[in-house]
Amino acid sequence: MSDSKILLSEKEMPTKWYNIQADMPNLPKPALHPETKQPAGPEDLSPIFPMGLIMQEVSRERWIEIPEEVQEIYRLWRPSPLCRAKRLEKALDTPAKIYYKYEGVSPAGSHKLNTAVAQAYYNKVEGIKRLSTETGAGQWGIALSQACNFFGLECTVYMVKVSYQQKPYRRSVMEIFGANCIASPSNQTSSGRQILEKDPESLGSLGMAISEAVEDAAGRSDTNYALGSVLNHVTLHQSIIGLEAREQLAKADAYPDVVIACCGGGSNFAGVAFPFAYDKIVKGAKVRLVAVEPSACPTLTRGHFGYDFGDVAGFTPLLWMYTLGKDFMPPGIHSGGLRYHGDSPLVSQIVHDGIAEARAYGQTATFKSAVLFAKSEGVVPAPESSHAIHCAVEEAIAAREADEARTILFNLSGHGLLDLPSYDDYLSGKLVDYPLPEDNLKKALEQLPKV
Amino acid sequence: MSDSKILLSEKEMPTKWYNIQADMPNLPKPALHPETKQPAGPEDLSPIFPMGLIMQEVSRERWIEIPEEVQEIYRLWRPSPLCRAKRLEKALDTPAKIYYKYEGVSPAGSHKLNTAVAQAYYNKVEGIKRLSTETGAGQWGIALSQACNFFGLECTVYMVKVSYQQKPYRRSVMEIFGANCIASPSNQTSSGRQILEKDPESLGSLGMAISEAVEDAAGRSDTNYALGSVLNHVTLHQSIIGLEAREQLAKADAYPDVVIACCGGGSNFAGVAFPFAYDKIVKGAKVRLVAVEPSACPTLTRGHFGYDFGDVAGFTPLLWMYTLGKDFMPPGIHSGGLRYHGDSPLVSQIVHDGIAEARAYGQTATFKSAVLFAKSEGVVPAPESSHAIHCAVEEAIAAREADEARTILFNLSGHGLLDLPSYDDYLSGKLVDYPLPEDNLKKALEQLPKV
Repeated sequence: MSDSKILLSEKEMPTKWYNIQADMPNLPKPALHPETKQPAGPEDLSPIFPMGLIMQEVSRERWIEIPEEVQEIYRLWRPSPLCRAKRLEKALDTPAKIYYKYEGVSPAGSHKLNTAVAQAYYNKVEGIKRLSTETGAGQWGIALSQACNFFGLECTVYMVKVSYQQKPYRRSVMEIFGANCIASPSNQTSSGRQILEKDPESLGSLGMAISEAVEDAAGRSDTNYALGSVLNHVTLHQSIIGLEAREQLAKADAYPDVVIACCGGGSNFAGVAFPFAYDKIVKGAKVRLVAVEPSACPTLTRGHFGYDFGDVAGFTPLLWMYTLGKDFMPPGIHSGGLRYHGDSPLVSQIVHDGIAEARAYGQTATFKSAVLFAKSEGVVPAPESSHAIHCAVEEAIAAREADEARTILFNLSGHGLLDLPSYDDYLSGKLVDYPLPEDNLKKALEQLPKV
Repeated sequence: MSDSKILLSEKEMPTKWYNIQADMPNLPKPALHPETKQPAGPEDLSPIFPMGLIMQEVSRERWIEIPEEVQEIYRLWRPSPLCRAKRLEKALDTPAKIYYKYEGVSPAGSHKLNTAVAQAYYNKVEGIKRLSTETGAGQWGIALSQACNFFGLECTVYMVKVSYQQKPYRRSVMEIFGANCIASPSNQTSSGRQILEKDPESLGSLGMAISEAVEDAAGRSDTNYALGSVLNHVTLHQSIIGLEAREQLAKADAYPDVVIACCGGGSNFAGVAFPFAYDKIVKGAKVRLVAVEPSACPTLTRGHFGYDFGDVAGFTPLLWMYTLGKDFMPPGIHSGGLRYHGDSPLVSQIVHDGIAEARAYGQTATFKSAVLFAKSEGVVPAPESSHAIHCAVEEAIAAREADEARTILFNLSGHGLLDLPSYDDYLSGKLVDYPLPEDNLKKALEQLPKV
C-alpha cells in the first residue's frame, strides 16, 4: 500500500528559492513612486527595507541561494510533509488522488514563517536591530515574532484592535516569543494618534495598522518594516513549498493535473504554484494552477488589472496588479488573511496571462469542506486554507463524474486551532455568506489612481 | 551536520505494542471489586469495557499486535518525529545531546490519540455504537472525539463545567468531530442531577464527571466507557511512543542515559519509558527513567503505595498504586492533566521497585523552561509537557557541570496552542507556585480504604 505521507530528509530540502521573474512571458509593469508616479528605485525602498530584499524584489535570476542561516531555522520544521488524503478520497468516492502539502507543521502554524525567517535574516545581516509590522488576524504577527526571536531582533507588531480583542490567543503567542504586540490604532505613532483623536473608539483596520508600522520603521534608523505577502521577495521565499512538493510527488511517481491554493495577498498561492508554473512555461507541462479567493473579496475574479496603492492611506508605491480599489471594504468574513483589496503583482500577471486561473467561493461552502476534511484527515484547517480544500473537493467530484484518475495537489497553508470560534459559528448556523457589496466595489474602482 | 529531525517511514512504524507486564519483576497486586474487596474479574468490567481491552488489561504477552485498522489511522500522523533540540543545547551551553519525541503532531495535539484510536476500534468490533467519557482540560475529550469519528461511533464527553466555560476552544474541536460535549454536572444523569439539586452552581470536578460518564455507559447496552490514562491497556497502546523513539535513536547511533516524561495518570510516561524499561530489566541497559509530576500533586514522590479507588465517589475497582488519597484536592495548577490523586499501577510498581524514579517541580519553574524551549525550538509546549522539559533542562545543566556528553530523551506529549491563557498568566507574573496543602493531604491519606 502506498504511504499516507511522503517525507523528504533534511538533506533533500531545496537549497535555492525559485524566482518566477526569470521565466514569465510578461513581467508586471514596474512599481511607481506614490507621488512622482515614476518607477520606484531601490533608494525609494531603502528607508524601510534592507538592500538584500530590495535586490530580490527586482532580480531576474532564476535560482537564488537560501542562506545557510535560514536553512538552519527551516530545518526546525522543514521539509514539511506531503500527505495523500486517502480517507477524503474515500469519502468523496473519487478516482482522483488528492495530495496536500501541509504547512501547518511550522511553529507559527502556517506558511508565513518561510518568508518571516528570510526577512529577519536579511535585516539582521545589514545591522537592523528591530522590525515593525502590522497583522490582521495574527498569523503573520506570530511568524515575524518567531523569526525575530530566532535572529535576536526586537519585533513590534501593530495588531488591528478588533482582532487584538477578539483573538487574544494569537497575541499570547507573539508575547511568548518576546514581541511587543500593540493594538492599532495606538498612541505610539502620529498616524495612530490622529485616528484616535477623531475616534477614540476606533477598532482599527489593516490599512491603519500598515500606516503605523511603516511610520514606526521610517522614523528609526535601527528599524525596518516587514510585509508578509504581496511583494516579489515574499513569493520567492515561499517557493520552497512547491519545490518540495514537486520532489515529493516525484517520489510517488506522480505529477499534478491541478495545483490549488487560497489567495489573499498571493504568497501562499505563489509558494506552491510558481515551481509548477516553471514546468508549464519552460517545459510545456500540462498543469492547471488555480488560485482560490472568497467571493466576498474577489480580487482576481472581479478586480481591475492596473496600478493601485498597496495600502489604504496611499503611502506605498503603486503596484501593477488586480485590485478591487484600496477603498473597497470587504465584508467581515472569517478568513482574515484573504481580506485584501489587491494581490501580488506576479500572481496577478500570470492570471492575466492565462498561466493560472482564479475561482471564488462563499464561506459556508468552504467551512463545509473544512469539516469534511477534518473528519476525514484529522487536521482542523485554517479558514483561509479551507478555500483550497473546497476547490480540491470540487475537482475530485469532477474527476469522479468524468471517471478520470486525476492527480490533485493543494496547499494546506495552516491549521485552524486559533480560529475555533469561526467553527463554532459555522456549526451553530450563525455563519452566513455575504453578498459582494457591489456599490462599494463600484465606488472603490472609480477611485483608482490615475496614472 | 547531523539532522535536526529523525524520521521513520510508515513502513518502519512498529506493528506491535509492548506489554511491560511480561517482564516486571513484581506485578501490582490485582484490582479489587469496590464492594466485595475480592479480585475483580473480567465479568466485573464487561458492563463498561469491551472484552478486547479487558484481556489486554491482564495479558502477560510481551508483544501485542496492533490491528491493521488502528495502524491505518496511526499513519495519519505516525511515526511521529524525534527531534534533536540543538538550539536548546546551545542556549544551555551543554555537552549533552537533547532529543525529544514530539507527540503534538497528532490531530488531537497530544499523545492521547494513540490509545483513543485503539479503544474506539476494540469497542467497534464488539458492536458498541457509542462511547462515553469524562474530560478535565479537554485533551482526552478531543482525542476520543476524533477516534470515535474515525470509526463511526457516537461520542459523549462530560467536561468539567469550569473547563467547559474557560476552555471553549477544546469543546469546539470536539464538536467539529461530531461529539456531544456536555458540561458536568449535568441533568443527563442521576448523579449529575443529585449534585445540581444540592448545588445548582457547581463548577464540577473530574470525579463528578467520571461518575456521570460511567453511569451513562452502565445504563445503556450500546454504550461503553473509555478512560484516557491509568489502566494497563492504556499504557500498552502508548508504548508505540518509546518503541519508535528507540528505533529513531538507533538511526542516530544514540541511546539515552535518561528518559523523561511528565506523569499524571501515567500513560505518557509509560508510553515513552516502558520500552526502555524492557532494555533495563531484560538486557541490563543502564538507563534512568524519570517521571515528573507537579509539586502541588506529588503522587509518586509523596503518595502512599497501596490500594485506593480510581475515582472520587468510590465506584471503580480498588487499584494498587501510589495515591494521595481520592479525597485529596490539588491546588488549581495550569497542568490540568497532572491533577490526579493516583497513578497507573504499572508505573507505580516500577517506581516502587526502583526501576524508575520520580521528581516534582513547581509550575513557575516549568513555565520558565517552557518559554526557553519555545524560544529555542519554536514549539509552544503544553503545560503538562513542560514538566518534562524542565527536568531535561536540569539534566542538561548537570551534564554541563559534570562535563559529560550525556544523551537525554524526553517526551513532548503535546503542544500548548489551546493553553495560551496559562502563558499569559506566566508572562504577566500572575502565575504562582502553590504550596502542597499538607493538612488536606494528611486527611486524604487517613481516609484510604481499609483492605
